[in-house]
Amino acid sequence: MSARAAGRWPVAVLGATGMVGQTFVRLLAGHPWFELTELAASERSVGQRYGDAVRWSEATLADEVARLPVLPCDPASITAPVVFSALDAATAVGAEAAFARAGRVVLSNARSYRLEPDVPLVIAEVNPGHLDILDAQRRRRGWSGAIVTNGNCATIVGAMALAPLHERFGVRRVVLTTMQAISGAGYPGVPSLEILGNVIPFIADEEPKVEAETRKFLGALRADAIADAPIAVSAHCNRVPVEHGHMVCLSVELAVPVSPADARAALCAWRGAEVARDLPSAPDRPLILTDQADRPQPRRDVDAGGGMSVTVGRVREDPVLGLRLVALGHNTVRGAAGASILNAELMAARRLLPAP
Amino acid sequence: MSARAAGRWPVAVLGATGMVGQTFVRLLAGHPWFELTELAASERSVGQRYGDAVRWSEATLADEVARLPVLPCDPASITAPVVFSALDAATAVGAEAAFARAGRVVLSNARSYRLEPDVPLVIAEVNPGHLDILDAQRRRRGWSGAIVTNGNCATIVGAMALAPLHERFGVRRVVLTTMQAISGAGYPGVPSLEILGNVIPFIADEEPKVEAETRKFLGALRADAIADAPIAVSAHCNRVPVEHGHMVCLSVELAVPVSPADARAALCAWRGAEVARDLPSAPDRPLILTDQADRPQPRRDVDAGGGMSVTVGRVREDPVLGLRLVALGHNTVRGAAGASILNAELMAARRLLPAP
Amino acid sequence: MSARAAGRWPVAVLGATGMVGQTFVRLLAGHPWFELTELAASERSVGQRYGDAVRWSEATLADEVARLPVLPCDPASITAPVVFSALDAATAVGAEAAFARAGRVVLSNARSYRLEPDVPLVIAEVNPGHLDILDAQRRRRGWSGAIVTNGNCATIVGAMALAPLHERFGVRRVVLTTMQAISGAGYPGVPSLEILGNVIPFIADEEPKVEAETRKFLGALRADAIADAPIAVSAHCNRVPVEHGHMVCLSVELAVPVSPADARAALCAWRGAEVARDLPSAPDRPLILTDQADRPQPRRDVDAGGGMSVTVGRVREDPVLGLRLVALGHNTVRGAAGASILNAELMAARRLLPAP
Amino acid sequence: MSARAAGRWPVAVLGATGMVGQTFVRLLAGHPWFELTELAASERSVGQRYGDAVRWSEATLADEVARLPVLPCDPASITAPVVFSALDAATAVGAEAAFARAGRVVLSNARSYRLEPDVPLVIAEVNPGHLDILDAQRRRRGWSGAIVTNGNCATIVGAMALAPLHERFGVRRVVLTTMQAISGAGYPGVPSLEILGNVIPFIADEEPKVEAETRKFLGALRADAIADAPIAVSAHCNRVPVEHGHMVCLSVELAVPVSPADARAALCAWRGAEVARDLPSAPDRPLILTDQADRPQPRRDVDAGGGMSVTVGRVREDPVLGLRLVALGHNTVRGAAGASILNAELMAARRLLPAP
Repeated sequence: MSARAAGRWPVAVLGATGMVGQTFVRLLAGHPWFELTELAASERSVGQRYGDAVRWSEATLADEVARLPVLPCDPASITAPVVFSALDAATAVGAEAAFARAGRVVLSNARSYRLEPDVPLVIAEVNPGHLDILDAQRRRRGWSGAIVTNGNCATIVGAMALAPLHERFGVRRVVLTTMQAISGAGYPGVPSLEILGNVIPFIADEEPKVEAETRKFLGALRADAIADAPIAVSAHCNRVPVEHGHMVCLSVELAVPVSPADARAALCAWRGAEVARDLPSAPDRPLILTDQADRPQPRRDVDAGGGMSVTVGRVREDPVLGLRLVALGHNTVRGAAGASILNAELMAARRLLPAP
Repeated sequence: MSARAAGRWPVAVLGATGMVGQTFVRLLAGHPWFELTELAASERSVGQRYGDAVRWSEATLADEVARLPVLPCDPASITAPVVFSALDAATAVGAEAAFARAGRVVLSNARSYRLEPDVPLVIAEVNPGHLDILDAQRRRRGWSGAIVTNGNCATIVGAMALAPLHERFGVRRVVLTTMQAISGAGYPGVPSLEILGNVIPFIADEEPKVEAETRKFLGALRADAIADAPIAVSAHCNRVPVEHGHMVCLSVELAVPVSPADARAALCAWRGAEVARDLPSAPDRPLILTDQADRPQPRRDVDAGGGMSVTVGRVREDPVLGLRLVALGHNTVRGAAGASILNAELMAARRLLPAP
Repeated sequence: MSARAAGRWPVAVLGATGMVGQTFVRLLAGHPWFELTELAASERSVGQRYGDAVRWSEATLADEVARLPVLPCDPASITAPVVFSALDAATAVGAEAAFARAGRVVLSNARSYRLEPDVPLVIAEVNPGHLDILDAQRRRRGWSGAIVTNGNCATIVGAMALAPLHERFGVRRVVLTTMQAISGAGYPGVPSLEILGNVIPFIADEEPKVEAETRKFLGALRADAIADAPIAVSAHCNRVPVEHGHMVCLSVELAVPVSPADARAALCAWRGAEVARDLPSAPDRPLILTDQADRPQPRRDVDAGGGMSVTVGRVREDPVLGLRLVALGHNTVRGAAGASILNAELMAARRLLPAP
Repeated sequence: MSARAAGRWPVAVLGATGMVGQTFVRLLAGHPWFELTELAASERSVGQRYGDAVRWSEATLADEVARLPVLPCDPASITAPVVFSALDAATAVGAEAAFARAGRVVLSNARSYRLEPDVPLVIAEVNPGHLDILDAQRRRRGWSGAIVTNGNCATIVGAMALAPLHERFGVRRVVLTTMQAISGAGYPGVPSLEILGNVIPFIADEEPKVEAETRKFLGALRADAIADAPIAVSAHCNRVPVEHGHMVCLSVELAVPVSPADARAALCAWRGAEVARDLPSAPDRPLILTDQADRPQPRRDVDAGGGMSVTVGRVREDPVLGLRLVALGHNTVRGAAGASILNAELMAARRLLPAP
């Protein structure tokens, strides 16, 4: 593919020692288009070798990555033109803007800029066109680089299940209840005394994120801003004792009411935007429709498509809103690091990355 | 109280070796109005001492109960005038009718008769008046006894949270998502390989029960039948790795839209029907309203009111249906055995039991 | 009982906001001999009401306790003559000595002084006579008060199972493998990502504690010091995903080899030291011997004797060391706060507390 | 390799619908030497397509396997010369003998024949020479085929950790305590109500198996029988809420006492018998020695070497028996199906299989 003709892009990961940072490092190992050359983290880790600074929880850490020095999170210390950010929101506000100002393309997991009208919030298969707002972003902010965000981990799972329905029938109202894995809270995250054999019906700041981001994912590109879709969204967010995989139960009202069979057909046929197909991290099918009565389940389906597919099941009539279904996705892959990498590949394919 | 003046009622438990049967046995120990004198179970156990036949999983089993012989589940073998049934649905159909025909009052946990229009489906604090249908039941069926049912364990939790709202503001539509404990599936029930670190988004036959029973609990007594409340109910039922305690997330549309503050006031003020107060198994408060952001939780709140209180929290605006909240109750106590015993106490107080 | 004739002792809890501190507060509620009048914690909490400073995780917190102000952990701020310490080891070193110097009796859970030869390490039923070392302690250290310690939570469980065997037959060598609950690590303690569906075969500093403290519990009082029992102890300490209750598998070599039947008889007959019977927190039986093949189990047996009984089972021959068995005890009750309170009751009964 | 020159061996799996049977099916997919051509199970499943008869719990089931008909477990219905048995012990006694009599080589997971002195109990890297007993087996039993067994899942993990120590220093006595995963009990296996947040200190028949099989694995080939190694073994077997991976804590007495450093060197250097290296299912290292203080752990290490490596750690002095360590292995791969397949590969390499 021409995108990689000139060699691989050097890329950096900011916040590389955390949970999502580690997932970035794992997913970038041997990436055909990107070469992980720099790692940055908080002051506490700077100067150490990455292998010493990180409490590695993925399977294996390649020696050449373990040996990389941990750098500070500022553009003066990082040379890579493409930067993946797993920073926490407080740090991300300043740091990501600094990188964008310095001409870097920042693919961010942080919530800091997600709802800014001139910052694209992108799922590659759902709304790749929102990247066109980058011109406005650069004009308005005077940046030579850019910030592109992916959504909250639970929102992405729900939005991918809604996308085919919205494209075909128009989504008007959604009640969604999540059952979210502990890895979504990072490390050390949720104390075991709180969650072992328990359910916590609250995740700080999560419900407003799910509601607002869903509308933006399904929204429309206007001249200088992305306009939210006029969808009413209600989220109930729960933490459950599951390691990886966010489950979402959805009750959906469509502008054009359809039978479950028609909804299933739409979900089954959906392949996402053409431009996002065949990207290195794109799964064979962004959505997998299961017809087993008791699926999807986190333990069995979370790694579908290498963690990049969302599995949808139990599509049935809803006595209140018309249609019900269940969706499951891997929260640290499709819902975080994998989503950012896929967005970067999308930008590469659309020639929106600086030449490597 | 006059109800007990003439001594305690001898009572029997049918299906005494199962999970709910054991909870009956535990809750009836030392009961001020009822004396557990007979235990019945399937053919396999008949003739054994109860202590040998049961795989006891509650804390302690009194010697005098352990020594009781296990009897067959038919009225020829049982003399008690009041009978608690923890039978499975298939067995209950025939056995419960036989007891009612033989003049016994059957308090049933089985689903077999719950939706019959002449069979009361009762939560003591919510719809005690539905017991008045018993005259019609006897007339129509030619029984000298009666069958009174309590609902599905998840339905009871949801219906108790809805009752104060329905009484004050009228419930029109509800989307409810449950996260149900493994003890709801009985023993051996859910294999650990299926649920450890997992969520199963399906419980066989559960969703239709929740939807239909909610309408009946909140329905109205007509001449010869109980009429469902005209409420649209959508249920998503999930199994989670929790031992005891069903959680329910509710999105509710009211006939009279109210603020969360007004809803909280209604929930907080609610004490249930007057006739159900001060019964031996009635908790101080049938509903407990918590204002902690991350409660109720199964591990912390399941035993509120000795397992007979439902805890409600996170009462807040819902962008789709108007009002959102979370409810939690103990599925084998308030959702099963305790509910039946409370119903029997209610009948005693209303002088609907045969003289002891 | 004469010990309480002059009224209840005012007592304080140091480190009252932590896990063990909370267990102290719960167990002292309504205590017949002790009145909880003061609570102390770290600087961060000082000045707040206890109810605001604590993340309460026990069932209910009495209003009068919730209203108590949190005081600093020094004897100038605390007037109670009897002080329970749930401080971490680093803080305990200085703070507990300061209280002892100021004439207070400190009942400590910290490991700081446990292995000092003039500091009694006491299980009330096992080695109450070790309290006689207090004279030497006062002489040597010039304290008017005293420090009395209880052991590590896992050690206590093992030592109680060994005590009857040691008294009757002499324990020579023990290999013990623990499976310890997460509450033993306090709050926030073990991250859920580390322990959900997992076992961690290591607990920092735990194995040396178990080995050394076991020898001291079963040791002998000499003139000026407590002499370790000459027992070889090997501990394997593991963390498992259990909320409360430490399990210990023991292989034991006795000086006088005995049959499992004789060992069972010794365990079954044991009631502990006479002086410790009938104390308010003493359970009916400090050891409960079960003959069910698959018990003890944390979920079913942890609360035996209000959490103060250790349950022992599977007493059988060991092909290597002669005798095998399994023991289980509640780590925050018998293994921590309850043990300290029982020790204080023992001191009251032996008139070793300053007059209230 | 010459072993496969003549094409792949057709192989069958007996008991193919159970937990271990499924692992066989998964591991045989695409095997370079064996071609899975026939599947057999109990009468209940016979005649159905495998995909319909099985409750598949592994990741994906290939269509060509799903389409295979389920056959009866007798040699008249099965043509494959090599048969993997995942039958339960009761069925295995008769069925496996029938296959051996009919000239087939049976690689068995059942315990039925493991302790027969003329039946090899083999870990390919530990005691491949025990296969030489097959001549005696055939002579004595008049079989043209053979039965070769692998051990109990917990025993294999322990025996692999002991093998290098036994080879170099001689093992005399071992106390081992297991913490075993729920998948070791098959499906449906352990009810979730029994194991969620719990430990069960008992597994039926497990301890005698571990003790006897360990002695046989490390034993010596005599003229007509395999002689147990003269090692005293004591096993404490526990079930813990872990999905896959048996942990074993070992205290070991060696004939030649060694330092932990020397023990580590022996464990680290061990590659197992030369004949077992480079077999298709042999991992790079049968033993992996970790120096991280809190490893091995089931969640992190169970899949080492594709589930075929045992991870050993915490090698340290033992105050009672001299040496302590911890071992972990995958119970359904290295401890069951993978072990059988590796044994079959070993037989192929040693030309002990009938020509394909």
